[in-house]
Amino acid sequence: MSTAPSRRAGAPPGSGAPVTGAWQEGDPVGRRQFAPVVQHRPFRLEGGGTLAQVTVAYETWGQLNRDRSNAVLVCHALTGDSHATGRAGDGHPTPGWWADLIGPGLGIDTDRWFVVCANVLGGCQGTTGPASIDPATGRHYGSTFPVVTIRDTVRTQALLADHLGIGRWSAVVGGSMGGMQALEWAVMFPERVAALVAIATTASASAQQIAWSMVGRRAIQSDPGFHGGDYYDQPDGQGPTRGLALARQIAQIHYRSEVAFAEKFGRHLVDPLDAAGTFSLDQRFDVEGYLDYHGDKLVRRFDANSYLRLNKMMDLHDLGRGRNGAAQALRRITAPSVVMSIRSDILYPPSQQESLRDGLRAEGRRVGFYEIDSDDGHDGFLIEALQISPLVEAFLDSAAETTT
Amino acid sequence: MSTAPSRRAGAPPGSGAPVTGAWQEGDPVGRRQFAPVVQHRPFRLEGGGTLAQVTVAYETWGQLNRDRSNAVLVCHALTGDSHATGRAGDGHPTPGWWADLIGPGLGIDTDRWFVVCANVLGGCQGTTGPASIDPATGRHYGSTFPVVTIRDTVRTQALLADHLGIGRWSAVVGGSMGGMQALEWAVMFPERVAALVAIATTASASAQQIAWSMVGRRAIQSDPGFHGGDYYDQPDGQGPTRGLALARQIAQIHYRSEVAFAEKFGRHLVDPLDAAGTFSLDQRFDVEGYLDYHGDKLVRRFDANSYLRLNKMMDLHDLGRGRNGAAQALRRITAPSVVMSIRSDILYPPSQQESLRDGLRAEGRRVGFYEIDSDDGHDGFLIEALQISPLVEAFLDSAAETTT
Repeated sequence: MSTAPSRRAGAPPGSGAPVTGAWQEGDPVGRRQFAPVVQHRPFRLEGGGTLAQVTVAYETWGQLNRDRSNAVLVCHALTGDSHATGRAGDGHPTPGWWADLIGPGLGIDTDRWFVVCANVLGGCQGTTGPASIDPATGRHYGSTFPVVTIRDTVRTQALLADHLGIGRWSAVVGGSMGGMQALEWAVMFPERVAALVAIATTASASAQQIAWSMVGRRAIQSDPGFHGGDYYDQPDGQGPTRGLALARQIAQIHYRSEVAFAEKFGRHLVDPLDAAGTFSLDQRFDVEGYLDYHGDKLVRRFDANSYLRLNKMMDLHDLGRGRNGAAQALRRITAPSVVMSIRSDILYPPSQQESLRDGLRAEGRRVGFYEIDSDDGHDGFLIEALQISPLVEAFLDSAAETTT
Repeated sequence: MSTAPSRRAGAPPGSGAPVTGAWQEGDPVGRRQFAPVVQHRPFRLEGGGTLAQVTVAYETWGQLNRDRSNAVLVCHALTGDSHATGRAGDGHPTPGWWADLIGPGLGIDTDRWFVVCANVLGGCQGTTGPASIDPATGRHYGSTFPVVTIRDTVRTQALLADHLGIGRWSAVVGGSMGGMQALEWAVMFPERVAALVAIATTASASAQQIAWSMVGRRAIQSDPGFHGGDYYDQPDGQGPTRGLALARQIAQIHYRSEVAFAEKFGRHLVDPLDAAGTFSLDQRFDVEGYLDYHGDKLVRRFDANSYLRLNKMMDLHDLGRGRNGAAQALRRITAPSVVMSIRSDILYPPSQQESLRDGLRAEGRRVGFYEIDSDDGHDGFLIEALQISPLVEAFLDSAAETTT
């Protein structure tokens, strides 16, 4: 079948020249939309329990073509959201997190592809999560919100695809937790995934990843403002802000690298010493100011209960669960794929992606593999979007030709 | 001068055969002793402030020879203490932390050397620290205990050496924070250090190390039981136990390695799933049980205020401070040295020790360098004592010959 739209079809006037730097002043912000994908029958969860209603919040860019065959799903990471690209604006404190990769003329070209990004189940950006109102009680779910998994999230995205009339994605693309979703998509719905891009991700969470995840959860759960997860209606109001900030600070260290920190901060102090050179316990080095900034920033935009649930979701990620192991799971994937590593990633080290690549190749699958040369650690999958962009573009081109 | 005593001199009867496995049933536990090294004049601290009295708690093994020339100083790391070797027993919940390296017939042979290990300033094992009584108030120092530095600690050890009548150490040996002390000894008192062994350590704390240190401090300081550091006399009694446990859990992750965790824990659960396979937020993987165990264990033996002070002490470690940089500082070292790395160390990565080695060689110093082949991460400097032992033994032999 001829599905891939012609290159640059649907491009706005004047956009024929290559566009760099992603979205420009005057481009649309991106509009968050809401799909009530579960309404009249309960949504059964992989780990037990049900949700009576599920709404998925999402954004789209580009035009869906007539035969609905040019759709690309982009999956976000832990503290990401549906605003994968586009300017800052209403409800979007910052520009899209892959603004250098998704847009007119970029690697995922919105003149060619209809790009969809949906907030994950259990999150806090419009898709049903712990801060949502439980229709059974009329109150926030809070502590009663169940454990949800990557597979549950992928099923909500499949319902969204149904809602949008998209039978098959031209590609499913994601990094980190987004890559877990992309992999599960290709395993759970191989007939609905024409191509797969998995960056800085893994076939299953490692013991070390679980360990990092746990200490972040403990930081939140130890905060007196947590109230066991039912903090929304507490008089102290703010919830476990210190705990959530600490969880983010811990994560911000293993999201980056020793080299990146050394180059960026060295041993500089936030405040200079007094004339006598007195040391004090609360004297901060620059890197401490940086961690404070990132902790405070996340607290303003993220719900602690979602942070707990999504970390658990990643810990539970295991392609092989209930499928006789990872090799059997990978065998279900039919799509050609590209796997990418970030050289300096200590959280999702390249060995995990090499293992994915080798597992897919052992099953005879077509796999491209790239190691992105970056000192930025795991966050390289965001920071190095300009390096990633042409690789994704070339892969989407070749995959489109193959499936034409 | 002929200083090194003959090999195995002073060995107890029957100990002529090589002894492996360090201390045996019936060997002495090691007796903690106390030296009031500062009594009648205040001890001025590098970062400002003074301490009116300083007591140093220490242990020794072996016999000091007649001309007091066979003394080796072993310096402990963050949560270590003076019990570097010997059995568990009174005041020592576990055997010595370098029991495979220090003892009769081992790398640091107590039949040959008089081995001293002193608890650091600011700690909680008998040397003056935040839990000590401030003679000015009759109460625990708590929040008023000043920031102390590696250089301050080394000066207390120099006073201890004076107290013991040891003019010059045959060697100063340490790993991690202990290596920082060994390096400062060689810079501050080059005439008192005949040989230097620095393992898994650095010329100055890196931004990433400071970042790890900070999140541990924040975990403690955020605990409601912390009371700003004045928790000793609080009715709730226990102090910031959750915060200290969390700080330890965070550290326990970067003390080890991804590979070690994967091999040891994989994705096993502490408790099996119920028949329905229900997931819950508090379901723990094995690695989480391990971290809980280590958090609880440290809380029982360590004071949170000391944890804060010693982490700050490491953050402030910088051989070059006030000395026109690290190169100038290294130039002061006259002792031959051995520097060792742990291959899988992500906290004190081998690049830091390579930099030390190169800095010393650039100043024309004699430096041996070894990378210990270990998957155990930073803790390899403890776990791989059997690998380290012969290297230290050979170096002490050659250094003793050189200085004979």
